[in-house]
Amino acid sequence: MSYDKRSIPILISLDPSSPAIQQRGIHNRWHPDIPSAATVHPGQTFKLHCLDWTGGQIHNNDTADDIVTADLNQCHYLTGPVECKGAQPGDVLVVDVMDVTPFPEHAWGYCGIFDINNGGSLLCDDFPVAAKAVWDLDGVYATSRHIPGVRFAGISHPGIMGCAPSKELLDEWNRRETQLIAEHSGAVPAVAYPPNPKSAYIGAISALSNDIMEAIAREGARTIPPREHGGNCDIKNLSKGSRIYFPVYIEGAKFSIGDLHFSQGDGELTFCGAIEMAGIVTLRFNLIKDGMKKLSMNSPIYLPSVVDPKYTTQVTFQGISVDKDGKQHSMDATVAYKQAARAAIEYLHSLGYTKEQAYLLMSCAPVEAHVASIVDHPNASVTIGIPTEIFDRDIRPDAVVAAYETGTLKKAYGASHATTIKRA
Amino acid sequence: MSYDKRSIPILISLDPSSPAIQQRGIHNRWHPDIPSAATVHPGQTFKLHCLDWTGGQIHNNDTADDIVTADLNQCHYLTGPVECKGAQPGDVLVVDVMDVTPFPEHAWGYCGIFDINNGGSLLCDDFPVAAKAVWDLDGVYATSRHIPGVRFAGISHPGIMGCAPSKELLDEWNRRETQLIAEHSGAVPAVAYPPNPKSAYIGAISALSNDIMEAIAREGARTIPPREHGGNCDIKNLSKGSRIYFPVYIEGAKFSIGDLHFSQGDGELTFCGAIEMAGIVTLRFNLIKDGMKKLSMNSPIYLPSVVDPKYTTQVTFQGISVDKDGKQHSMDATVAYKQAARAAIEYLHSLGYTKEQAYLLMSCAPVEAHVASIVDHPNASVTIGIPTEIFDRDIRPDAVVAAYETGTLKKAYGASHATTIKRA
Amino acid sequence: MSYDKRSIPILISLDPSSPAIQQRGIHNRWHPDIPSAATVHPGQTFKLHCLDWTGGQIHNNDTADDIVTADLNQCHYLTGPVECKGAQPGDVLVVDVMDVTPFPEHAWGYCGIFDINNGGSLLCDDFPVAAKAVWDLDGVYATSRHIPGVRFAGISHPGIMGCAPSKELLDEWNRRETQLIAEHSGAVPAVAYPPNPKSAYIGAISALSNDIMEAIAREGARTIPPREHGGNCDIKNLSKGSRIYFPVYIEGAKFSIGDLHFSQGDGELTFCGAIEMAGIVTLRFNLIKDGMKKLSMNSPIYLPSVVDPKYTTQVTFQGISVDKDGKQHSMDATVAYKQAARAAIEYLHSLGYTKEQAYLLMSCAPVEAHVASIVDHPNASVTIGIPTEIFDRDIRPDAVVAAYETGTLKKAYGASHATTIKRA
Amino acid sequence: MSYDKRSIPILISLDPSSPAIQQRGIHNRWHPDIPSAATVHPGQTFKLHCLDWTGGQIHNNDTADDIVTADLNQCHYLTGPVECKGAQPGDVLVVDVMDVTPFPEHAWGYCGIFDINNGGSLLCDDFPVAAKAVWDLDGVYATSRHIPGVRFAGISHPGIMGCAPSKELLDEWNRRETQLIAEHSGAVPAVAYPPNPKSAYIGAISALSNDIMEAIAREGARTIPPREHGGNCDIKNLSKGSRIYFPVYIEGAKFSIGDLHFSQGDGELTFCGAIEMAGIVTLRFNLIKDGMKKLSMNSPIYLPSVVDPKYTTQVTFQGISVDKDGKQHSMDATVAYKQAARAAIEYLHSLGYTKEQAYLLMSCAPVEAHVASIVDHPNASVTIGIPTEIFDRDIRPDAVVAAYETGTLKKAYGASHATTIKRA
Repeated sequence: MSYDKRSIPILISLDPSSPAIQQRGIHNRWHPDIPSAATVHPGQTFKLHCLDWTGGQIHNNDTADDIVTADLNQCHYLTGPVECKGAQPGDVLVVDVMDVTPFPEHAWGYCGIFDINNGGSLLCDDFPVAAKAVWDLDGVYATSRHIPGVRFAGISHPGIMGCAPSKELLDEWNRRETQLIAEHSGAVPAVAYPPNPKSAYIGAISALSNDIMEAIAREGARTIPPREHGGNCDIKNLSKGSRIYFPVYIEGAKFSIGDLHFSQGDGELTFCGAIEMAGIVTLRFNLIKDGMKKLSMNSPIYLPSVVDPKYTTQVTFQGISVDKDGKQHSMDATVAYKQAARAAIEYLHSLGYTKEQAYLLMSCAPVEAHVASIVDHPNASVTIGIPTEIFDRDIRPDAVVAAYETGTLKKAYGASHATTIKRA
Repeated sequence: MSYDKRSIPILISLDPSSPAIQQRGIHNRWHPDIPSAATVHPGQTFKLHCLDWTGGQIHNNDTADDIVTADLNQCHYLTGPVECKGAQPGDVLVVDVMDVTPFPEHAWGYCGIFDINNGGSLLCDDFPVAAKAVWDLDGVYATSRHIPGVRFAGISHPGIMGCAPSKELLDEWNRRETQLIAEHSGAVPAVAYPPNPKSAYIGAISALSNDIMEAIAREGARTIPPREHGGNCDIKNLSKGSRIYFPVYIEGAKFSIGDLHFSQGDGELTFCGAIEMAGIVTLRFNLIKDGMKKLSMNSPIYLPSVVDPKYTTQVTFQGISVDKDGKQHSMDATVAYKQAARAAIEYLHSLGYTKEQAYLLMSCAPVEAHVASIVDHPNASVTIGIPTEIFDRDIRPDAVVAAYETGTLKKAYGASHATTIKRA
Repeated sequence: MSYDKRSIPILISLDPSSPAIQQRGIHNRWHPDIPSAATVHPGQTFKLHCLDWTGGQIHNNDTADDIVTADLNQCHYLTGPVECKGAQPGDVLVVDVMDVTPFPEHAWGYCGIFDINNGGSLLCDDFPVAAKAVWDLDGVYATSRHIPGVRFAGISHPGIMGCAPSKELLDEWNRRETQLIAEHSGAVPAVAYPPNPKSAYIGAISALSNDIMEAIAREGARTIPPREHGGNCDIKNLSKGSRIYFPVYIEGAKFSIGDLHFSQGDGELTFCGAIEMAGIVTLRFNLIKDGMKKLSMNSPIYLPSVVDPKYTTQVTFQGISVDKDGKQHSMDATVAYKQAARAAIEYLHSLGYTKEQAYLLMSCAPVEAHVASIVDHPNASVTIGIPTEIFDRDIRPDAVVAAYETGTLKKAYGASHATTIKRA
Repeated sequence: MSYDKRSIPILISLDPSSPAIQQRGIHNRWHPDIPSAATVHPGQTFKLHCLDWTGGQIHNNDTADDIVTADLNQCHYLTGPVECKGAQPGDVLVVDVMDVTPFPEHAWGYCGIFDINNGGSLLCDDFPVAAKAVWDLDGVYATSRHIPGVRFAGISHPGIMGCAPSKELLDEWNRRETQLIAEHSGAVPAVAYPPNPKSAYIGAISALSNDIMEAIAREGARTIPPREHGGNCDIKNLSKGSRIYFPVYIEGAKFSIGDLHFSQGDGELTFCGAIEMAGIVTLRFNLIKDGMKKLSMNSPIYLPSVVDPKYTTQVTFQGISVDKDGKQHSMDATVAYKQAARAAIEYLHSLGYTKEQAYLLMSCAPVEAHVASIVDHPNASVTIGIPTEIFDRDIRPDAVVAAYETGTLKKAYGASHATTIKRA
């Protein structure tokens, strides 16, 4: 008898350099009727390839043109669904994230600011124009020719994971989101994205009847938001070594995964804010029969990994529920988050970064955003902490004041800034 | 010549057992004309006494009656103002938080759920009735006879710090908040608290003319919310060893401090959510002349302390911008926070805690709330992580499922729960 | 009924500015017959004052003369013994270290290199002459006018804790140490210190018969070494929040404590290497009846505190069992430790510190010394890691090389070095 | 122009399932004349395969027979030498450890106790008989069918790295070690291993003259000990993300690497104590010209990775320089380490582990051994801390006492223990 392990099988293989729509085993809508692309048993370890969220629309170059013209209807390309044998509604699918890596020959990623007319971003009023930074994924570290002076260890994770919704849950998603859209008709950027057959993709599967394929395209929920099944939760700490407990809504669970990030800051504020990458995940499923009841859960429970970078020193900024025009909002944590982000961007800008660089950096570096207090009417208090150890010089206020007084503050990163990020 | 230090002077002494309104050196409104109660020079180390935020209205007993009847118009009693010699508008007051401790003979604190008709709390729809837990402050640890099975190290900090506003800034605060109140007239609980002469207190100072005293009472901003000067920012990591950079708006800076917490969870969700305590702070001031410009800052910058408990393992819950009635909100982090909190409360409840205990515990234990993503329309994603190491048993899902299956889950904390927290 | 706590009693009060030998409640030998100076019950919280280890022989000034002339026969002055009611041989005394602070009006400490003719130090061949640095204890941080450019948070702890030995255990200590001394007669510095009536002190207690007092002075074990009861274990992480399980050898346990350190590096290599201070400890006792058997223990078990500074980045040096003269030793971790220390001292010296400053700094800063491997004949591998975050500039090799190449390396700390530490 | 990276080249490929002596690019002695097996330029990233230290002599099965019969003369098989273009004596070779992984299809490792007559171990008096545990390398975690109840994240690292010695340095090694052997003739186990042509291997290279090959076999230093070039330093934190500065002694540096560990405890006390594995390393070289002078270094300087598991709670044991027979040694940290290890083993044994299991576990789990103090004559104080979070139950003393009193202590791991580890 041999205890030696065989190699871990790659259940779904993809080519990050080929067009997404020529590949199988991926899809870009949530729908219970999308057929499983692979099947595993509880306890089995397996690998899946993942495209980057856009399916290869963004390139490793020095222009943001591809951000301007990216077709967001295609997003996100998810890998799966993967059927878990024996899973029934009400069960909990336990997913061990065993590894998340870029493709070895494709060791780069990008973050971008989306144009206000094509997706936008959290601070799209301040940053209406597209921008992009490319990152070299250099072992555990990321560096960028577009944002000099920083180097940080990634906490690589999938931005999107979750089981397929039941038809009832899907209908509920569509109901509530359609209502929101109706309440904000004409908003730019849009407040939500309804089902849209345009660019809907379910993996080049020919076995389905046209009726079913059309129904999936017509009804399938967009992958942009997180929802109660998980989805695009963008939790930056779900790196290798994490365990997640997902609700199961349909037989076989039909788990999908994608939107890999080499690193992300809390909030992912530029929308395409993480270091987006294509790559390979290693997973294992287990089942807890009737687990939703046993764990009193209606949404995922996460055990983040014990293996994470130890960045401990932060310069921290605060925002409250008063917007940039001085308008008082009622306990609005989103406004507070935005204001904290603006304070941090101003600070990084004073160090010599362009505002676009600062905005991009805060989106993808291991920045922490905490809801400090959310009970002190009328202001929520949100903090954003930037780790100091990722910079190649001291960015703490005492050092900044000293550099200001000797006139060396803004000279640190030189003239290369303005030209490294090109706009359309 | 002797290098020996003299004892650090206590600039303002208070008695936590006496009525607040008989004591000097405290005030409960923000106003530039409140006279300084003490004066220090940059570089000087000093101590200040602080009452608990209510000025002694809440007692170490087993009823929540005092929560029900607490006069919130009195809150918060702040210590100060302390003048910093040489401070001018545009300067930055650097405050080193050197120590935060309870009074030695008063080593207890409390957290409470405020009644929906008297302050309320974040989840006041779910928890409309007052409740209270008293905590013993036992060296670095807190334990409660009202919430058994947990013990955690405090990260003691002042909930409120900041310099007095200029008259112009004060007017701006009142303008914007008054407008918000007008937009939500009749809201319960109120969306904001306007200036209110009732219970306004500026420290039993007789030297002021009646005109000025009346103006302070009439115009003085309430201390409830955080604002751009800092104020009630409730940042749980500003413990001893922290350094904060505050904007100076008026000559002498006029710094005030209060609302001491032995420990707080991110969000402080029950409103009186931290372990509130009276105590002693040790501080030092320094000045950066013209610092607001040098640091490009319009709100405080924080360097949290390097000395904090090392709780590293968390069970994490997620919330999105869909409220408990299923209504979809647009990128609302506050709703997402609430939903994550509800998921966490359900989970703790399944372990045998009452929901009130769970709600109180999440408010005061070293719980972390992160804005995971705030760009994926229409849902923000907020996570709340509960440290596992503070419990006297394993609360991870695998252990919970095992306990569920052997029928031992809810028995852990016994019958004492329901009776330990009394309501009015 | 009131739940309010009374103030914690100070069981033994001392004056750090008065001569030790005029004070009661202290002693400087281990012996079962030293009478208890105080008595507590399990579960009771209490405070004890402690002198610095020398009993006030070292002063806050700029000369090392007092190091040269210090009477080591007096060391260490311990506070106690404190009797724990109900303790019996075989029990375990559980000691909660609830706080360790300097006297408020005495907020300074010192570290010193002892002269080779008076105590010596680990590297006494390299550093035969006495030196001293005085530290200001500034809230959680220490800074020194004698070692510029560093500031670090203390992990304050007692260097010495333990229960009194039984007569049998004391005899065993004396037996084995006497034998060692005999094997190394004439060694300088001495390999061990036998009982010595000179300067023996048991607290100005007059109730004892002369016979007993003379027996204690004649037989009492010196406090210099750690032993199986704990004693001078100098474990740098036993800060407030720690819990220690001590063996009990005699009725009442007779616990003593002293040698308070504001901070210490692993190894405490200059002998008087920690930041030595007088101060106040807050403790609580509990008992585990027959605990030595239940815990299979013959020496203390420690649960270090969860509250410690988070210094995470280190520059690390390695030593092996080849001494500075090139002689190969057999798996000698002590030699390896010394060689790692020498490599670290050279490195700090290249930054502009004097070698004495470097040696002192490594003794008292939160430096970590690990036994990396101790199985690879003939060399043990020991590492010493210096935290980078305690310096006011980047000390990592890349920055050092850059500074070397621009000629700015050694200029950082200026000309003040050589004169700040005086020798006799 | 394309910024896309090509795949990282594998400079030396090996097969962990084939006999070592049929493979090229490996060697098992240190000698300057071993020809380079590969050449790289500074700045280049590359991969190397590594065999396990024994070259495949140990198997994934349930007997320790292979430990008994292992040929230690073959150890360690190192990969290399790799020439760094441009390196000259006096330079510093900067090595970035970018990744360390097992072969994907070979995801297991082992730790073993070597027989006293074949290598032995640190506590070979207590454990004279061979034993073995096999570990499954399960993503970031290790688990063992031979040591149930534990699961921990690995800190994978190479146990051996370093540049080839110059002839002068090699002669010095041989001189001093030969002298030590002479001083301890007949010792069992041996105190050191002299050059030994038996089983010497330099990689099936046919281009060398017989004279040179014989000289290498005759003079080449054994790879067992760490030395000033690094070598078998077994520093458990040199995981991916670490940067190491190695002295260069000969032209081209001739760097070699091997002895990969999935995880190791400080001390590696069973000799084959880490989780030994074959695997793949990803490295990058850089050069600092004349760096040994610039960095004042004669031995490696290490910057351990910022990415490591966050195990923070420890149960800690203490040892002093009194051996198990009660003999007092003079400041012997090795004896102190051994005694701390024995205390820890007793404790783990009381939990139900066999002593062999405890000994093996302490060797490979992320255990920390600190030199607490090494100045308190005659006893050094060494601590060993076992992380509590790696066990599936609470191992802190309070829980152990509770389990003891209910009679459930030793039952935890059942009867499977004694039979899972077989001896010859």
